[in-house]
Amino acid sequence: MSRQVADAPPSPDAAASGQGLRLAVLGAGLVGGSIALAARAAGPVVAEVVVTDADPEVRQRVRELGLARVVDDLEVAVDTADLVIAAVPSRAVAEVLEAAAAAAPGGALLTDAASLKADTTAEVTARLSARDLDPTRFVGGHPMAGSERSGPDAADARLFQGATWVLTPTAATADATLTRVATFLRTLGARVVALAPERHDELVAVVSHLPQVVASTLAAVAADAIEATGDAVLAVAGGGFRDTTRIAASDPGLWIEILAGNRTAVLEALDAYTATLLQAREAVAGRDWESLEALLARASGARQRLVPKATPTEVADLLVPLDDQPGQLATATTALGAAGINVEDLALRHAGDGGRGALLLQVGTGDLERARTVLLSAGLVVHVDRGS
Amino acid sequence: MSRQVADAPPSPDAAASGQGLRLAVLGAGLVGGSIALAARAAGPVVAEVVVTDADPEVRQRVRELGLARVVDDLEVAVDTADLVIAAVPSRAVAEVLEAAAAAAPGGALLTDAASLKADTTAEVTARLSARDLDPTRFVGGHPMAGSERSGPDAADARLFQGATWVLTPTAATADATLTRVATFLRTLGARVVALAPERHDELVAVVSHLPQVVASTLAAVAADAIEATGDAVLAVAGGGFRDTTRIAASDPGLWIEILAGNRTAVLEALDAYTATLLQAREAVAGRDWESLEALLARASGARQRLVPKATPTEVADLLVPLDDQPGQLATATTALGAAGINVEDLALRHAGDGGRGALLLQVGTGDLERARTVLLSAGLVVHVDRGS
Repeated sequence: MSRQVADAPPSPDAAASGQGLRLAVLGAGLVGGSIALAARAAGPVVAEVVVTDADPEVRQRVRELGLARVVDDLEVAVDTADLVIAAVPSRAVAEVLEAAAAAAPGGALLTDAASLKADTTAEVTARLSARDLDPTRFVGGHPMAGSERSGPDAADARLFQGATWVLTPTAATADATLTRVATFLRTLGARVVALAPERHDELVAVVSHLPQVVASTLAAVAADAIEATGDAVLAVAGGGFRDTTRIAASDPGLWIEILAGNRTAVLEALDAYTATLLQAREAVAGRDWESLEALLARASGARQRLVPKATPTEVADLLVPLDDQPGQLATATTALGAAGINVEDLALRHAGDGGRGALLLQVGTGDLERARTVLLSAGLVVHVDRGS
Repeated sequence: MSRQVADAPPSPDAAASGQGLRLAVLGAGLVGGSIALAARAAGPVVAEVVVTDADPEVRQRVRELGLARVVDDLEVAVDTADLVIAAVPSRAVAEVLEAAAAAAPGGALLTDAASLKADTTAEVTARLSARDLDPTRFVGGHPMAGSERSGPDAADARLFQGATWVLTPTAATADATLTRVATFLRTLGARVVALAPERHDELVAVVSHLPQVVASTLAAVAADAIEATGDAVLAVAGGGFRDTTRIAASDPGLWIEILAGNRTAVLEALDAYTATLLQAREAVAGRDWESLEALLARASGARQRLVPKATPTEVADLLVPLDDQPGQLATATTALGAAGINVEDLALRHAGDGGRGALLLQVGTGDLERARTVLLSAGLVVHVDRGS
């Protein structure tokens, strides 16, 4: 069961001193570069962004692109950090975070961005524990946002806007670590969900890895059936085929790494899928249209629940971080009222241990963009916080 | 193997007399209504569009919407028709076309729009033959275009723009029937492909019916795995899941009818799919990553071939029907040249037995819209004829 994560200031020190967060990003590919850009765009909540990468050419490219301040050494990058994010390949996460923990201030929080969590999270925790480097300040993370492009040139400050960012706390994770990292990620525009590492891996097996195998199998089988006779034309015509096989065009090498890394959960998902598919096959073979219709109806309902369409009555959340200045709440509600935008719900998220809080505004999705514009024009910081 | 269909005048009589085609549309749902609208928008090539429907309420609605001239009786609708299109449910096609053949002029061409072709095509041919109603003038058809909406209110003159329209000639079909119906359908903006009826049904089993079962199974299995614990949030996050299950939200009852109607071909497609899926499963189980990567690579290549992306070098065809007036060819090429649009290829499609022909212009897809605008501004009729 996922848990929603309450807000908290990104760092008690930073909040107490009235200063912003000092962020170190280790690894400057698509994700690391986008984190750096998004953090720099987050306003005064972030005081500093330092980036490094093991590859000198990547560091040079980040300098040319002006994404953030670049340093050559990991130790220098984390030297004064409040939060360290390792945006490196899964196999490098534990080593990088161990080095970062040893070099960073004692209170610095640590997280990563690897797409599988069980092994990585356990390994980081074990390494920090073994060296007495305080594992309570680490929480694993997985930003569910991507692009077909990669590398720092693909970095985009809006990559995480509205994206789900899973955090994977364990018994070793301090509550404050979870809430502070979550709060920072929300300033990047992400929707934060907390899951156990193992549950995360089971779920991505179903919603990401299984669809990849299903789509690839479909594309391969269709090509066999179609291309022998030169009748490829209908593949383009079938909208269902286009949608259902879209991800089959992905990079095979990348996917082998993912599927191998999550082998057990992928096998379970494949077995559940195959069992249901064979039921459908038997229904067709036996002309049991009633059973098949029941399956299709169950699937139709499931799809509509799992991926709901935007409807006029659907609402979206806007999160307005408040600083200590009085009157901001009134500014927000007055601006929306003047623009004729109906506020469906309104809540204050009090900060647990600092002066900051945030205003949660719920508006109809149809009003979302206009509400954001109105609030920005009123001088407020606004994040779209879908559903959290 | 599909065959491309050469152009010909829609009707020798109509061409010889210099008059446009007289079209009767039987059935005024989404497809019939859209045919009527598109035909009326096709210019002087169509002289008259008459619509009827077995349902008085639908007829009334078509009158209110002003889609086309409506008559109450099938016999009246086809009385002077050059071409009759039955846009009725599959089970009604043969009966409707038999009645139309008996009432229409001897030279009238007949086609339908049912989504499965083998049974329908055979039944129509048998019925016409049995009553000596000249089956050579019938060719089956399947416009591969649709909408989530249905009924005459959903009719759209542009429904067939760029859509694939399969015609299914048999040994009983006259060549002239095929070419004349194809030429008319191109004036609606469709890309026409000819396939044997049985081959059509095999192909749609693979590119349409199999994807439906695959997507529905995935949605159902994912719901089982996700919803029990309330972790539905990740389903929305996974772009692959969204794409791969999109069509699972379709109407179950409609799909049961389709799957039941194409049962043998669907079973074959399901068996081929399951066999390949089980190979993938065994590769994961046995850590045979080499085999799995080969499958993913084959699928990736297949997807990119079957559904190619638009690239700067990709070209699109514009078809400009020419009338007997001289100078139209020069008008077209001069207008494009003046606009700086590079014509990649150019061909004249001569009419086999009439004065009319068409100019085929190939331009880069990036220039397509601008080329169309330029040609329309020059007073020409333009159809986008992707790939045919």
